[in-house]
Amino acid sequence: MKTTYLDRSPTPSKRTKTLLTITSIKEMKAWARRGHEEGKVIGFVPTMGCLHEGHLSLLKESVATCDATVVSIFVNPTQFGPNEDFGSYPRTLEADRKTLMSTGADVLFLPRQDSLYPDGFQTYVQVEEKTGYLCGKTRPGFFRGVTTVVLKLFNIINPHKAFFGEKDRQQLEVIRTLVQDLNLDITIVGKPIVRETDGLAMSSRNRYLSKSERDSARALSQALDLARNQIERGERSAESIRKEIRRIIEEHKDAEVDYISICDPENFTEQKKITSRALIALAVRVGKTRLIDNCFVEGV
Amino acid sequence: MKTTYLDRSPTPSKRTKTLLTITSIKEMKAWARRGHEEGKVIGFVPTMGCLHEGHLSLLKESVATCDATVVSIFVNPTQFGPNEDFGSYPRTLEADRKTLMSTGADVLFLPRQDSLYPDGFQTYVQVEEKTGYLCGKTRPGFFRGVTTVVLKLFNIINPHKAFFGEKDRQQLEVIRTLVQDLNLDITIVGKPIVRETDGLAMSSRNRYLSKSERDSARALSQALDLARNQIERGERSAESIRKEIRRIIEEHKDAEVDYISICDPENFTEQKKITSRALIALAVRVGKTRLIDNCFVEGV
Repeated sequence: MKTTYLDRSPTPSKRTKTLLTITSIKEMKAWARRGHEEGKVIGFVPTMGCLHEGHLSLLKESVATCDATVVSIFVNPTQFGPNEDFGSYPRTLEADRKTLMSTGADVLFLPRQDSLYPDGFQTYVQVEEKTGYLCGKTRPGFFRGVTTVVLKLFNIINPHKAFFGEKDRQQLEVIRTLVQDLNLDITIVGKPIVRETDGLAMSSRNRYLSKSERDSARALSQALDLARNQIERGERSAESIRKEIRRIIEEHKDAEVDYISICDPENFTEQKKITSRALIALAVRVGKTRLIDNCFVEGV
Repeated sequence: MKTTYLDRSPTPSKRTKTLLTITSIKEMKAWARRGHEEGKVIGFVPTMGCLHEGHLSLLKESVATCDATVVSIFVNPTQFGPNEDFGSYPRTLEADRKTLMSTGADVLFLPRQDSLYPDGFQTYVQVEEKTGYLCGKTRPGFFRGVTTVVLKLFNIINPHKAFFGEKDRQQLEVIRTLVQDLNLDITIVGKPIVRETDGLAMSSRNRYLSKSERDSARALSQALDLARNQIERGERSAESIRKEIRRIIEEHKDAEVDYISICDPENFTEQKKITSRALIALAVRVGKTRLIDNCFVEGV
């Protein structure tokens, strides 16, 4: 990435200038229109800010494969339930802006809430079957909010490619379905989970964790590792594996299972036997913080 | 229109050639992409076929104001309820094609049902509050089907302008909301109701009517005329006007009121007093045929 970046703007002072901040929808559209007219391939990384290495891996991929990269930061109210953390979700704009300076991203799009959702707003898009499982089951309305805001951002930015992390594996699949069903010409690129040294999947919500909760949070990736080992050693019963995962999580007093799913990677229906490629997906509440993680397994 | 048309293709044999039929989504997208690259303003008239003068007025406006016009014919299954007339909806493709030859339309888009709704299709768009009234109330799921297919067609054809008839006044308003809420750059143009000599609003469903039902069907526009007269003479009570409309409809034994609404023209909430601009909207079943009509009134 750095090379690409340096090729374009060799001095540190110029680096700062390369990140254009746009807050107006109209200006964002005008920028995108010019990009299209100039034949540029536009990459888009939608985020809710509080950027970490996971986001940066998406940005790097976009900068490496597109002519121009737009990153949006918008904490989207429609994807939070009434008892969820919309109000307390970490907002770290100045730090994010600094982080973005060195990525080679071209535009930081910061839409205002009242311009994305003005008075009288009432149109929602819903991917149906696939959102009836996993996070869609325990966070009703979540995916409806995600697909609505993502579709709006797609319509504003008109990207050729958009980048999503595989930590939100169901979200990635739901977005792919959205794009296919609504006949959009956008390539959806998924990128692998980025983890802390001890295995915890990177997430903006990790910063909610106290020191002891942070220790307990390791249980998610540990449980996935153990499940993978069991399957490698021949275990095929989803029930046995789910039990073992639950046992590992519940060793921690401050951890509570939201769901443990061993399912079809595309439609998320539960599997009884692991006979082919399957997704193991977890949601666990550690203290008040809800964390998710997942991995693929091959039951061959 | 005719002049515009003749300017482009002076001989009858060439006229026939000007209407390109496209059935593939991919080809339709490629055509639209070329049009955009050539800087053409693309107009779009979505229809379910069985074309009448109402459709033609939309086509004429598109041909007059755009560089290229696409008309789609697709009887959209997702907007029909389980007990509605999807199976029997008139399909008159050869006649429609002939009709279109003389309009100056450039492309007839005829998507296949299984390409617009392939196996696994599961994404729907819903305009919410505005669809809780009038036809949205008595035809649950109707607008969800309309907005979903229209959004798909918009994404395939990528038009600058799209044309809708004011007979479906609520649909027109719902589409405007869809476009605004989802940040689409499409100008939605509404065109006035085209009527038969005796006042009946043109509709593909009129051909369902028997001779005696056709006589009864005049009651819709007659009732609207009478309501308008009453308001001009000073009547302001919505209840009185609704009663009078109902009386006129129910003079016909084969006519049954679905709804009579006197409402706000934008959000469709019922009005008690006609103090400003209001919409009078009717849905009436004549025999088995459901007909709609509407007009604006000014209670000044």
